[in-house]
Amino acid sequence: MRHFAVVGHRAPTAPDFPLEDLPGAAGRLDVLVRCVTAALHVSHGIRRDAVITLLLQGPPRPPRAIRFVGSDLRSLNPDERSTAVRIRTALGYEGSLEREVSPGIHAGAATLAGFVERHAPILLMDERGQDLRGLDLPPEPTFLLSDHEDLTVEERATAEGAGSMAVSVGPRSLHADQVITLVHNELDRRGHGA
Amino acid sequence: MRHFAVVGHRAPTAPDFPLEDLPGAAGRLDVLVRCVTAALHVSHGIRRDAVITLLLQGPPRPPRAIRFVGSDLRSLNPDERSTAVRIRTALGYEGSLEREVSPGIHAGAATLAGFVERHAPILLMDERGQDLRGLDLPPEPTFLLSDHEDLTVEERATAEGAGSMAVSVGPRSLHADQVITLVHNELDRRGHGA
Repeated sequence: MRHFAVVGHRAPTAPDFPLEDLPGAAGRLDVLVRCVTAALHVSHGIRRDAVITLLLQGPPRPPRAIRFVGSDLRSLNPDERSTAVRIRTALGYEGSLEREVSPGIHAGAATLAGFVERHAPILLMDERGQDLRGLDLPPEPTFLLSDHEDLTVEERATAEGAGSMAVSVGPRSLHADQVITLVHNELDRRGHGA
Repeated sequence: MRHFAVVGHRAPTAPDFPLEDLPGAAGRLDVLVRCVTAALHVSHGIRRDAVITLLLQGPPRPPRAIRFVGSDLRSLNPDERSTAVRIRTALGYEGSLEREVSPGIHAGAATLAGFVERHAPILLMDERGQDLRGLDLPPEPTFLLSDHEDLTVEERATAEGAGSMAVSVGPRSLHADQVITLVHNELDRRGHGA
């Protein structure tokens, strides 16, 4: 299994955001929905061995998490708007306890610290980290990414406190979804999970 | 310079498509706009050394081409809807002769055969091709991709007739935008164009 988690610093935690303005009024939710597509889609199919957790930190009731589990999803379209609709539906559940709100999609309250503790050690994607190519990886790796903003000093300390390792995919600073695509490719080439 | 071209088999060639249904009524234009983002965006910036040409084959007046030139673009947002708006504007120009319709965006009538002839030899992205890692590339490579449908037999013959070489990025069949991200990463790692 391959697990990705993305911190959405201004991503909404209530379902009243406009689908017509994901980059603006929806707090750069466009970045997160592209990450969902990169994590779960291959040509004409879903990656059944992949999971992605969105750690939403924006208003009005942060922090909340939405988790997409590839093995359990019935369907998922690759376009931004469709995925944003799924997130909006998931945010209709306001409870704290994690619950499967539709097949393969879970929602609940969740802190970054709690997530990191549960999934340690974390691979922290960072262009100053060690090169992913050739790096030994755990059998069920968890990769932590940030949206268009860097992790805050506190978030980074939280991840590092749990023994995370900084990992890079190359010399350029890229979008989070592009990084996920590159991680998948490296694991595909190694036959990871096959 | 790095040039990507994507064949959009059902992509619209008039500006009357709905922004709310890019995957359906707009003939999988969602696939093409994700390719534009993958070709031109890095974190907080545009790849000035990249060009992408969309070869639109759908109704009502195919074939048309829209070309995004990274070095000349004034701005470009990474979300699907914004890029679709730029394409819609470009399709407002109905002439045959290629014209720069806004800074860095060109539109006109263009066949795949004409494109291939002008840019030969072409690197044809295909999961059965030679592995990109380690492959010698021309200094100004042009990569040809297809949308969610494979190239037709005729399109493939056109590309191969011009001496194209089939190139793969890995063992899984991926979305076209994911392939573009992987090609960029390989070139970035080689310091291509730097």
